[in-house]
Amino acid sequence: MGKGRLEAFSDGVIAIIITIMVLEMKVPHGNTPEALRPLLPTFLSYVLSFINIGIYWNNHHHMLHTVHKVTGTVLWNNIHLLFWLSLFPFATAWMGENHFSTWPVALYGFIAMMAGIAYYFLAHCLADIQGKDSVLAKALGKDRKGILSVIFYIIGIGLSFINSWLGFSMYLLVAAVWFIPDRRIEKKVE
Amino acid sequence: MGKGRLEAFSDGVIAIIITIMVLEMKVPHGNTPEALRPLLPTFLSYVLSFINIGIYWNNHHHMLHTVHKVTGTVLWNNIHLLFWLSLFPFATAWMGENHFSTWPVALYGFIAMMAGIAYYFLAHCLADIQGKDSVLAKALGKDRKGILSVIFYIIGIGLSFINSWLGFSMYLLVAAVWFIPDRRIEKKVE
Amino acid sequence: MGKGRLEAFSDGVIAIIITIMVLEMKVPHGNTPEALRPLLPTFLSYVLSFINIGIYWNNHHHMLHTVHKVTGTVLWNNIHLLFWLSLFPFATAWMGENHFSTWPVALYGFIAMMAGIAYYFLAHCLADIQGKDSVLAKALGKDRKGILSVIFYIIGIGLSFINSWLGFSMYLLVAAVWFIPDRRIEKKVE
Amino acid sequence: MGKGRLEAFSDGVIAIIITIMVLEMKVPHGNTPEALRPLLPTFLSYVLSFINIGIYWNNHHHMLHTVHKVTGTVLWNNIHLLFWLSLFPFATAWMGENHFSTWPVALYGFIAMMAGIAYYFLAHCLADIQGKDSVLAKALGKDRKGILSVIFYIIGIGLSFINSWLGFSMYLLVAAVWFIPDRRIEKKVE
Repeated sequence: MGKGRLEAFSDGVIAIIITIMVLEMKVPHGNTPEALRPLLPTFLSYVLSFINIGIYWNNHHHMLHTVHKVTGTVLWNNIHLLFWLSLFPFATAWMGENHFSTWPVALYGFIAMMAGIAYYFLAHCLADIQGKDSVLAKALGKDRKGILSVIFYIIGIGLSFINSWLGFSMYLLVAAVWFIPDRRIEKKVE
Repeated sequence: MGKGRLEAFSDGVIAIIITIMVLEMKVPHGNTPEALRPLLPTFLSYVLSFINIGIYWNNHHHMLHTVHKVTGTVLWNNIHLLFWLSLFPFATAWMGENHFSTWPVALYGFIAMMAGIAYYFLAHCLADIQGKDSVLAKALGKDRKGILSVIFYIIGIGLSFINSWLGFSMYLLVAAVWFIPDRRIEKKVE
Repeated sequence: MGKGRLEAFSDGVIAIIITIMVLEMKVPHGNTPEALRPLLPTFLSYVLSFINIGIYWNNHHHMLHTVHKVTGTVLWNNIHLLFWLSLFPFATAWMGENHFSTWPVALYGFIAMMAGIAYYFLAHCLADIQGKDSVLAKALGKDRKGILSVIFYIIGIGLSFINSWLGFSMYLLVAAVWFIPDRRIEKKVE
Repeated sequence: MGKGRLEAFSDGVIAIIITIMVLEMKVPHGNTPEALRPLLPTFLSYVLSFINIGIYWNNHHHMLHTVHKVTGTVLWNNIHLLFWLSLFPFATAWMGENHFSTWPVALYGFIAMMAGIAYYFLAHCLADIQGKDSVLAKALGKDRKGILSVIFYIIGIGLSFINSWLGFSMYLLVAAVWFIPDRRIEKKVE
């Protein structure tokens, strides 16, 4: 089965997620810079999520580039990933509105962690189908980056109960690591 | 006429439906787990609908995979299906906000049933065009699965007037049956 | 220049318009059929707009099927059409919430008329580019259907000041006429 | 790496941005023309943003038409552009609701300027990859139009502190200049 519609549907869902998050930044009533100030945490939260969703789209793009066959299992693994991504707007808004307090930061980390796990499953499901010698299987290897980011999210969730900004910093760290597109795949293609 | 745009438009509408449902989970004001608790029924309702819409996308994908020609009648049957799917966000939110009480559960079942009927019409319209010996026509056969799920929804609607959780269980049952992608088509293709 | 992205962008915008209209049906607080009753006019308004937008997508699909070249002028004519279509959710909600009273019905007719005019310009701009002997130019002919539906909308707007349901009936009439996909193009292709 | 998904994702995000802006025009409660009057500034603001986003889509379309290769850097430059475009609905609504007063007009100009800068980076990144003798590199040249529009936005922001309508006029001027699709590229292709 072709991968075309899988890409189109994922592009659609991810495009909507990344865009509707902005609707959570409610337009303030005043017309002064002071009226915008209360929105700063929401904006900061929005920027992190925009980058995170951007990273997922970017790597999803890279990953499927090397893939030729998809199966029903791949479709469901993909929908599973999209489910956790679809919860980002909620977690983003809750974290922003509550000025990065403990529980909202922990929930954000939980949803980011679940998305990371779903991405891990999708990547390995795709690699299995393409075969051991496929570009994707070799590029993934032991997939330290994927496993490490899930561990970092778990640490971040724990840290957010000590100081929520510590937890938030861990999420920034994971984003920074993934910001660079997956060179592993680009290298193997060459 | 090519099927490309039919797929693209359906992908777009289904991607939006599956994503805007999350907007019905209003961000709570508190920052504690207790503040999230009232959202649990809405979240449960969201999960069921996410799976249901995922199933429709998945099977729509499988079904159109075997199709080469589409006509004006197909386009309208497809728009008819999208109409009932577009009412899922409303029914999902009403059911969630009212903690799965009788009438909202019945309405959810009604809309799911109508979507099932619309899908049945679309499938048979496509099968007719491809011809009796087409992969799709053979895969559908007497389409017991399609007819049974409509019957199950009718039973579910009836049961929801005795106990709304009984009705809801029927909807879960239908989702479980369809969760597995339509192997009939995959088999026939092989 | 290829028409692929023009189709993709139009599909995207039309898919979003047809889907976000449902967000105007606010979920009621009660859990009884009585709680749904006040939504009936909004639902009726939604159904008409869903059909109207479906008609535009359908005919846009048919029209571009025969087209091979697009220019900058075509892109702007298309964006002009999308602009008027984008106002349907607003007009639909205003008409529904005010139970089809005079001014909202007149505004709905005005926006539908402007969309009709924009479609007329797009169709003729495309026909000019393809040449006099193109399938599209022959299929359009004098384009009585396009001109008549604009006239019907003008009559409908006028009638809505006598009795708003009379105006609304005219809009239903135009929808009924266009409901059938543009056979003119299908015939000429054969 | 192919440009197909980059176009599809950009089309999706831009289609959503251009469409959800209309959700900021809240449906009024009255059913008279007077009830619509307070929405006029919001509508005017919406029209300008619809044209601006339309211009970006149009030129994005033209620019990518000549491109064959995309890299990870291009993907991130594109996401950077989409980030600033995604803030248009917020800036549009704030400017409209506050009847084009100073700070909202200045913020609108700032976001428009940042989008212009992001577009400039994307264009030059793409030109670098295609090579000095590519159609795109020659068409861009010294890119006076791109640089000038950023300068005009800066002037507009400054003017909005003297008279906000003067600032707004500058934004209209930039829109008028870009309204005409980028003939430079069309000419070079020929």
